[in-house]
Amino acid sequence: MITAASNSGTLRIIPLGGLGEFGKNMMAFEYGDTILAVDAGLMFPEDDMPGIDLVIPDITYLLDRAPLVKGIVLTHGHEDHIGALPYILTRLNVPIYGTRLTLGLVENKLREHRLLETADLRLVDEQTQLPLGPFRVEFVHLCHSIPDVVGVVLRTPVGVIVHVTDYKFDDSPVDGRLTDVARLATLGSEGVRLLLSDSTNAEVAGYTPSEKTLEQVLDNLLARAPGRVIVATFASNISRIQQVIHAAKHRGRRVGVTGRSMIQNARMAMDLGYLTPPVEGLLTADQMGHLPADKVVIVCTGSQGEPTSALVRMSQGQYRHVHIGRGDTVIVSASPIPGNERMIHRTLDNLFRLGADVYYDELSEVHVSGHGSREDQKRMIDLLRPQYVIPIHGEYRQLVLHAHLAREMGIAPQNTFAIENGQVMEVGPDWILPAEKISCGPVFVDGLGVGDVGAVVLRDRRLLARDGFIAVVIGLDEETGDVVLGPEILSRGFVHMAGADALIEEAKEVVWDVLERQESASAVAEHVHTALADFCYRRIRRRPMILPLVVEI
Amino acid sequence: MITAASNSGTLRIIPLGGLGEFGKNMMAFEYGDTILAVDAGLMFPEDDMPGIDLVIPDITYLLDRAPLVKGIVLTHGHEDHIGALPYILTRLNVPIYGTRLTLGLVENKLREHRLLETADLRLVDEQTQLPLGPFRVEFVHLCHSIPDVVGVVLRTPVGVIVHVTDYKFDDSPVDGRLTDVARLATLGSEGVRLLLSDSTNAEVAGYTPSEKTLEQVLDNLLARAPGRVIVATFASNISRIQQVIHAAKHRGRRVGVTGRSMIQNARMAMDLGYLTPPVEGLLTADQMGHLPADKVVIVCTGSQGEPTSALVRMSQGQYRHVHIGRGDTVIVSASPIPGNERMIHRTLDNLFRLGADVYYDELSEVHVSGHGSREDQKRMIDLLRPQYVIPIHGEYRQLVLHAHLAREMGIAPQNTFAIENGQVMEVGPDWILPAEKISCGPVFVDGLGVGDVGAVVLRDRRLLARDGFIAVVIGLDEETGDVVLGPEILSRGFVHMAGADALIEEAKEVVWDVLERQESASAVAEHVHTALADFCYRRIRRRPMILPLVVEI
Repeated sequence: MITAASNSGTLRIIPLGGLGEFGKNMMAFEYGDTILAVDAGLMFPEDDMPGIDLVIPDITYLLDRAPLVKGIVLTHGHEDHIGALPYILTRLNVPIYGTRLTLGLVENKLREHRLLETADLRLVDEQTQLPLGPFRVEFVHLCHSIPDVVGVVLRTPVGVIVHVTDYKFDDSPVDGRLTDVARLATLGSEGVRLLLSDSTNAEVAGYTPSEKTLEQVLDNLLARAPGRVIVATFASNISRIQQVIHAAKHRGRRVGVTGRSMIQNARMAMDLGYLTPPVEGLLTADQMGHLPADKVVIVCTGSQGEPTSALVRMSQGQYRHVHIGRGDTVIVSASPIPGNERMIHRTLDNLFRLGADVYYDELSEVHVSGHGSREDQKRMIDLLRPQYVIPIHGEYRQLVLHAHLAREMGIAPQNTFAIENGQVMEVGPDWILPAEKISCGPVFVDGLGVGDVGAVVLRDRRLLARDGFIAVVIGLDEETGDVVLGPEILSRGFVHMAGADALIEEAKEVVWDVLERQESASAVAEHVHTALADFCYRRIRRRPMILPLVVEI
Repeated sequence: MITAASNSGTLRIIPLGGLGEFGKNMMAFEYGDTILAVDAGLMFPEDDMPGIDLVIPDITYLLDRAPLVKGIVLTHGHEDHIGALPYILTRLNVPIYGTRLTLGLVENKLREHRLLETADLRLVDEQTQLPLGPFRVEFVHLCHSIPDVVGVVLRTPVGVIVHVTDYKFDDSPVDGRLTDVARLATLGSEGVRLLLSDSTNAEVAGYTPSEKTLEQVLDNLLARAPGRVIVATFASNISRIQQVIHAAKHRGRRVGVTGRSMIQNARMAMDLGYLTPPVEGLLTADQMGHLPADKVVIVCTGSQGEPTSALVRMSQGQYRHVHIGRGDTVIVSASPIPGNERMIHRTLDNLFRLGADVYYDELSEVHVSGHGSREDQKRMIDLLRPQYVIPIHGEYRQLVLHAHLAREMGIAPQNTFAIENGQVMEVGPDWILPAEKISCGPVFVDGLGVGDVGAVVLRDRRLLARDGFIAVVIGLDEETGDVVLGPEILSRGFVHMAGADALIEEAKEVVWDVLERQESASAVAEHVHTALADFCYRRIRRRPMILPLVVEI
């Protein structure tokens, strides 16, 4: 057990994950003997992480100091901010603070993982003043692409820290609740020591458009569509579902929701009053298939081309209740997460093959970002007038661009930072400086294994993917050293074995050349490895993994 | 040997590759006993093709009819139009027709593959009238992002076919040579039966901007840059190199070119007069490193984040002659090819880490597309007024959108097509209709192997990448059936072996349970496979490839 690491009078900011994005999925604030974490999100694996299901933060720092951790405060209910909770709570069951909708989404998630019973969920809102050791935590309402988002205001002995991740200034949000500009301005007048602020759109000029702009677009598309309309978006995009319900009502259509996670989220949001359902209720799966096509709108998952999602199965003609065809209209209301482009393009191509009219990001204005652009970022700085700015939630270039923006807004250059993930920051009474670096993941979830797949296994998987492997089994007589078994060659992913008899025979010859030297088992293994690797590269310019298994019998 | 397949009086259009994009990399025209191919390009592998180096067209159709193939006509010198020539010429050495710059690039390529001596390269230009069997082939100048691009005009017994891939209407191209609008209009007046036209930007509204727009941008950036300027673009982008040379002259800087393929291309283009070098010549590698930073511009490869390219090595501090640091300016003048986003982002992040000022597609207008947008596509149809339109060079959705555009331009709906790759089309005297489908690749190049890696090997590589493998070696006494060797377990990519002793012991127990049944070797292999697969999924929810090797000793 490690105890409080911070010097007296110093607040420490500890990044705990995010695939290289500083402060994206989880970060912690430590002062004296109190640690408070903000968010606990997950990431989806990148393409050099084969076989990995999910990526979660590394909470070793917190586990080493478990008694100090007083809770996890959630900013909003998106996966990249709450998705790691099931993996974290089993090891560190601390109170979770969140707004109503956020906790509703957390409950769904914990119920699925059978963790709801033991979890300690505590509701907060914009009036909450939460004393936690030396901190007083308050919440300020922000707009994003999901309702009930808050910025975290941390009143600390070293000043007020404001943490705003995932926000935009939206003058006409779907739920009518504006970003609380007055409150932000008041905080600014009182004096903000440090702002930690969302950098996602630091490359995008201007303001991010209001969600409102989509209402007209959806309404027009619904008016024009001769048949069914299918709208794909993120499962958690409650606001988009609401907009579709509005437009459908105006155009005399009924609305169905499909895709397991989206149904779950919609139900919960309706129960909690964050989603106003159509008067006639949502369509059942049967009704979606049987009502006249021009009376139906279906909202579903699959906007990122996820292989098992509703839209992807529809695009492959494999969705039981909805068969897309000529006359149907599909609207993909989401922008591609980098890395998903090809999966999305394949899905779009398949929808075109079915004859649907398809509207998507590259073609039409059917999506707006939930993240503020450069002008939003400037406005946040303008309102809070912080002494220091640490950009969070962005890849390194975005952090730098955001830091430059802060300088343009008059923040002293030495008071802005672009920080690599893992870098601990210390906030003293009159300085903010980098401290040590810690390991902060990523931690890989693969099947039931959490953290057991690391760099070595991934490297092996990448090698196996590139050129496959050749295993050679050789049995030596333990007394004479004579070859009594093999060489047997087992290979996958290297060449098409059925058509490569000659090559495999040549490989065996290479092995026999080594065996004829009559060496020890370990020397045989090593020399077979070298000889076969050389042979494969010379003969066919490939580098399969070579695995000799030499046994003495 | 198969002989002429076409019915008398029918022209056949045969697609020969392009990773699903109809008519992108290579297509053939067949009439009577003459086949003429257009282009012979390669593609880079997609992310579900691990270990593959290149993807080339499947020319089986041509090989089966080799004596009929009279030549390959090239439209321009980009990799996706000429890159497969070295692989094709070794199997089908027919005359290659191309413009001067195109043949220059082909010569470089064939020289590298030691095929230049035996190749039959024939120069064409806009005056050429090439009689080939029943065809007369002519060429019309087009603008793109490389000089010396031509559209192919095929005068055939069933009418004039115009094939325009990779073009835009540029009113101020870098080399001053406009798309030959007059010629296109004349062809239109004479009557065009069929237009095959580039669909790459069928999702993009408006006209594609002129290359000229970049001159001002480059000039401004060069004027403002306090230190060295590095411009990354495609190795074949001769026009962009020329623009940098112009801007550098204006701003009193000298220009160097680096990256093996770019140096080669620049030299050749200078030799042929397509690139006007600076009066003082290009910088040597040494000069790039030693001249005052504010007097240097370097043009290099790496705009797609290619791992061994000049820019990527510079971004990692591993490029001998150029060490990027604070004060340097990097301009990435290219748009990401879908799938390359993450590699590009990593490179950009590393450049920011070095302190450089970086300008790139998402941030600034430092690139224009070489492909015409929807208004360019409309203009082409307007000029040629074809009876039929077959969109080529695009993913399926782009072909559909282009076909719709053609209908908006007054082409009869039944005279426009969106065609899956592999679909042969037949052009009769008064109809154009789909004929049979053929296999048209992709053919994979992996090391020295061309076409030996197919679906089976790729599937194995993908499986190996996902969850690795477990090989189990068991030796049975050939008389008693007793276990005399093993079970020995060999595994990679499944779990971290050093930390999974308990799991591997459990797996061995599972194998022993099977062995105790005393079955035949083949039954043992089958049952070990099933039992281990079940065990892995139940125990850890992974599905490694299971490879039992049961030998009788």
